[in-house]
Amino acid sequence: MTTTSNSKPRLYSFWRSSAAFRVRIALNLKGIPCDITPVHITKSGGAQFDLDYSEKNPTHLVPLFEDGKVSIHQSLAIIEYLEETHPNPRLLPTSPEDRAWVRSLAMDIACDIHPINNLRVLRYLVKNVGSTNETKDTWYQHWIKLGLNSLEKQLSTDSRVRRFAYGDQPGLVEACLVPQLFNALSSGMDLTPYPSLVKILHECLKLPAFMDASWEKQIDAEGLNPSIPPQK
Amino acid sequence: MTTTSNSKPRLYSFWRSSAAFRVRIALNLKGIPCDITPVHITKSGGAQFDLDYSEKNPTHLVPLFEDGKVSIHQSLAIIEYLEETHPNPRLLPTSPEDRAWVRSLAMDIACDIHPINNLRVLRYLVKNVGSTNETKDTWYQHWIKLGLNSLEKQLSTDSRVRRFAYGDQPGLVEACLVPQLFNALSSGMDLTPYPSLVKILHECLKLPAFMDASWEKQIDAEGLNPSIPPQK
Repeated sequence: MTTTSNSKPRLYSFWRSSAAFRVRIALNLKGIPCDITPVHITKSGGAQFDLDYSEKNPTHLVPLFEDGKVSIHQSLAIIEYLEETHPNPRLLPTSPEDRAWVRSLAMDIACDIHPINNLRVLRYLVKNVGSTNETKDTWYQHWIKLGLNSLEKQLSTDSRVRRFAYGDQPGLVEACLVPQLFNALSSGMDLTPYPSLVKILHECLKLPAFMDASWEKQIDAEGLNPSIPPQK
Repeated sequence: MTTTSNSKPRLYSFWRSSAAFRVRIALNLKGIPCDITPVHITKSGGAQFDLDYSEKNPTHLVPLFEDGKVSIHQSLAIIEYLEETHPNPRLLPTSPEDRAWVRSLAMDIACDIHPINNLRVLRYLVKNVGSTNETKDTWYQHWIKLGLNSLEKQLSTDSRVRRFAYGDQPGLVEACLVPQLFNALSSGMDLTPYPSLVKILHECLKLPAFMDASWEKQIDAEGLNPSIPPQK
């Protein structure tokens, strides 16, 4: 790491934040020791709006990663930074076309599923649009289903998929996929239509890098991981 | 370019799609000739759902970029691919920390503003949530304002900002920022609270790479660019 001091990097995290979960997985896969500071984004008022945190991260979102004087607040930008400063093990392939494929899959989740279902969006939907809780829950699953349909199609047909999305080592895709599937399961979604994704989920959860990053293992955890459906 | 044939790459684009606009800017900045195939995403039924296009791009979104056998459907993944295969001029800095900063700013737009305001989300809001058009318009501007507030804060205080977000050459940030500001202006938003962003917008629009990628210059254009407010 290009730390400007000998101190460990620090991740501002929330146990159930899927963007923070992505970074925790990446840190674990690379074996980078990191201090965690919880940011309680669901408490009344939201710790992400506290003055200290707002000064560090004007987006008022988690995660935030600090490495010496370097401060990065977008999960995929953090993971790309970890990849560049700590290249082994690699979380992205080496060829531009395969890197593009992996990044596209990751962004299908990080751009086109998760942001539409973020806490602030769900809250706005109820408070400002007047959505019922039922309509909000339907909204939540609608965007996940659309995204998972496309991911299943891509991951069930591409020859690069083996044990994981790209070959036999987990990387950027899995760091995004596992948190997204946790969210889906927690909302009660049936993952039967997504056997390729469930297969990868099972492979990931065999690894301490994923389990140690999971909800129930966090110092600020207030609940357990969702039940994982058996592989068919 | 690592094309597998001598043919030019092809971009599936829509004149008003801000994700396609980003890629058009990047191609122009790098001087990469590219064929454009319009995908009329706002027509009845939506050309993004046509069988041919769905086979190529199961996300049913634009853009899609084809370079020989390589096919990429996320705008930022396409731009990273262009950066890796055609490195000059650079659209990202060289140091990991500066690359992370640039990527974070780009993702503030590409993950946390635009997807929440995408055509499909706005349609779902009206059709499935029962939102009025007025509530939908308020929604649209709400997420843009939140995002631009944070971008203005970052770009008004960081010493890396000069003529552009990172130094004196435009890059990934501008490729995302200009399309987002076009959307904001088109919705009638007042950009007075964002002088740093408007300054960069003016610098960009002096350049043919940006103007040639803009709405009214596209072969499928059905309207003009928004009026650009004077710089104060």
